[in-house]
Amino acid sequence: MRAASQLLPVGAIVTVSYLRRFPLRILILGGDGYLGWPTAMHLSAAGHDVAVVDDFTRRSMHQERGTSSLTPIAPLPDRVSAWREITGRDVEMHVADITDYASLRSIFEQTRPEGIVHYGEIPSAPYSMIDRDHAAYVQQNNVIGTLNVLWAMREVAPDSHLVKLGTMGEYGTPNIDIEEGYIEIAHKGRSDTMLFPKQPGSFYHLTKVHDSNNIHFACRMWGLRATDLNQGVVYGMHTDETQLDDRLLTRFDYDELFGTALNRFAVQAVLGYPLTVYGAGHQTRGFLDIRDTMQCIALALANPAQSGEMRVYNQFTETFSVMELAEVVKEAAVHLGYEVEIDHLDNPRIEAEEHYFNPVHTKLLDLGLKPHLLSETLVESMISGVADYADRIQIDSIAPKTKWR
Amino acid sequence: MRAASQLLPVGAIVTVSYLRRFPLRILILGGDGYLGWPTAMHLSAAGHDVAVVDDFTRRSMHQERGTSSLTPIAPLPDRVSAWREITGRDVEMHVADITDYASLRSIFEQTRPEGIVHYGEIPSAPYSMIDRDHAAYVQQNNVIGTLNVLWAMREVAPDSHLVKLGTMGEYGTPNIDIEEGYIEIAHKGRSDTMLFPKQPGSFYHLTKVHDSNNIHFACRMWGLRATDLNQGVVYGMHTDETQLDDRLLTRFDYDELFGTALNRFAVQAVLGYPLTVYGAGHQTRGFLDIRDTMQCIALALANPAQSGEMRVYNQFTETFSVMELAEVVKEAAVHLGYEVEIDHLDNPRIEAEEHYFNPVHTKLLDLGLKPHLLSETLVESMISGVADYADRIQIDSIAPKTKWR
Repeated sequence: MRAASQLLPVGAIVTVSYLRRFPLRILILGGDGYLGWPTAMHLSAAGHDVAVVDDFTRRSMHQERGTSSLTPIAPLPDRVSAWREITGRDVEMHVADITDYASLRSIFEQTRPEGIVHYGEIPSAPYSMIDRDHAAYVQQNNVIGTLNVLWAMREVAPDSHLVKLGTMGEYGTPNIDIEEGYIEIAHKGRSDTMLFPKQPGSFYHLTKVHDSNNIHFACRMWGLRATDLNQGVVYGMHTDETQLDDRLLTRFDYDELFGTALNRFAVQAVLGYPLTVYGAGHQTRGFLDIRDTMQCIALALANPAQSGEMRVYNQFTETFSVMELAEVVKEAAVHLGYEVEIDHLDNPRIEAEEHYFNPVHTKLLDLGLKPHLLSETLVESMISGVADYADRIQIDSIAPKTKWR
Repeated sequence: MRAASQLLPVGAIVTVSYLRRFPLRILILGGDGYLGWPTAMHLSAAGHDVAVVDDFTRRSMHQERGTSSLTPIAPLPDRVSAWREITGRDVEMHVADITDYASLRSIFEQTRPEGIVHYGEIPSAPYSMIDRDHAAYVQQNNVIGTLNVLWAMREVAPDSHLVKLGTMGEYGTPNIDIEEGYIEIAHKGRSDTMLFPKQPGSFYHLTKVHDSNNIHFACRMWGLRATDLNQGVVYGMHTDETQLDDRLLTRFDYDELFGTALNRFAVQAVLGYPLTVYGAGHQTRGFLDIRDTMQCIALALANPAQSGEMRVYNQFTETFSVMELAEVVKEAAVHLGYEVEIDHLDNPRIEAEEHYFNPVHTKLLDLGLKPHLLSETLVESMISGVADYADRIQIDSIAPKTKWR
């Protein structure tokens, strides 16, 4: 990677001594994805030297299902060329499957990363629940991929900082407040600070728990540095960078496997189809704007974990029930002139529909996160964004076909 | 499988209605191993219809390392023939890799198991720490194998009961008492019963944690029945059945990868080599006699978990520090006329050498377990047993070559 010519601070002060220089050499695993590509641009714009790795698994999975992104995304080489053309900056591209250790290690040797942002996993709960083969594929892919990252760090980049994407779905819905990764447990007159017990809701969510346990071990044993981000459900189509040029658009999924609730509702509103709430809709989750994901990653990189530390942040800005989310979309869509109804489907998942949910999420705010909260204005602009691509919507990809039972 | 002609109760009363008949059809995964083969004989002797599955991974691993069992074990077909010759009972043999789902599912269809005893995993912490390839192999093998078992249960034998071997090493050494799988946590005025937080000490131990999380999920989602046995370190060479004929012997490992502390000390005492304690030797662990493993498995099978329940038992009878264990072996060996010294090696592992350790282990006792406690007499008989095979000892296989760091 060539050094970036211009240094743009990312909003926080780097105080850890191992950061010998700024910009950082950053390797983004899954750099062709919904969040990976915008993150690559965001960090490149901030002055870092960015390399991305992807093997286009997500694009292939859409081929398998006959679905695609609502936004017409460019191939990765075209994205990289457009970014260079528009900004003068290079994003180095590597095509590799990170479950192939020889390839990953070679990329580590070529790029000598100081920061590693790891989005390189299969991200779909329903995909992991289709059948045995899909469950095994997701578990093998995610667990071995992350295991490889840990070994590559140990062997090639032991001082680097891993920023790993997990999910709030690892926690499930316990009857106590969810802390950020760890909890002090008093028991029979003694106490200890332990990993917060997890109760994930799919074979996909389980992979993130397995990863966290493997990462925690590698930090304890080898002194690696890691930040485990338990991210909420991300919504939104655009970051500052994706809007610069159509070739820089990121993907926007709304299908039953890769779409998330708010994105799906926006598509349904534009089509005039009822918003499909699973079950009663009282399931409550953490959510955040895609622009806040960009901020959180930059903040984590600028404030790396200590050697031997697996730091855990709960990465979301607000909680909503699915029903509340549907109401927000409905109100915004009606304001834009759409007719919108809300429909309840039999829940294809097995999950509590009435539950306590009060997760702590202060650590990223303490680092300087300035949330973009979900206001009607944003939802309206998101619905308008969806409407721009209305002719690309495949309505039959939305209904849930994968059942947990 | 043919029905056994004679019904021998295994020591506990079967009260759960799904057990439509006794004997049970039992499938033992890893049925050629140190515990698997004695368990097959023990359950067969008790009147159950037993089938075993193995792909001889353990024997292959010894080929890889140039090591072998102290006891001269017969090939599995010879074991099965000898068992038939001596007892008139059949143990059905299947050679298959359980990570191959088609094979496993076919065996489930042929055997329609009511109880599944799952020893079919790679059991060595040091083996998993050799390098990236060994770590990935162990994680892939164990996690996907167990995932396959869960799917085979769901698809073929949804009422069957999984008895899964885990390890006390999953817990690590927290500063609070270790409960049996679950802990009630009071936090900020609310409370919930959660999975006990784990802190495993190797990539192997991590696979058992990953398994437990996957099993817990499958029980919650699909109503499967499982008993997760967090077993201590097993010692001993013989069960009632292994002593019936030389062809029925089980393996006895003492090498750096597959040997456990007490077995290794017995071999060293016989050779007149110092007993090699890792580090200070204050590391404290749970231990049990191989004959008590037989009892625990039989008790778990006779008292199956409820549908939807992952029941967890801590399966050991006593705790000792490694140093205490060395002293016990030294005393017994000296009594038999051996000269014995105790030597401290630099600890190849990363583990706390001074720690609190007070794990609860009452549930198996409540079911009727009658422990064989470690008395000098047993250790003497074990040392004598080892002496019978002194000419087979490969002394250079004992020293630890695999380091955690």
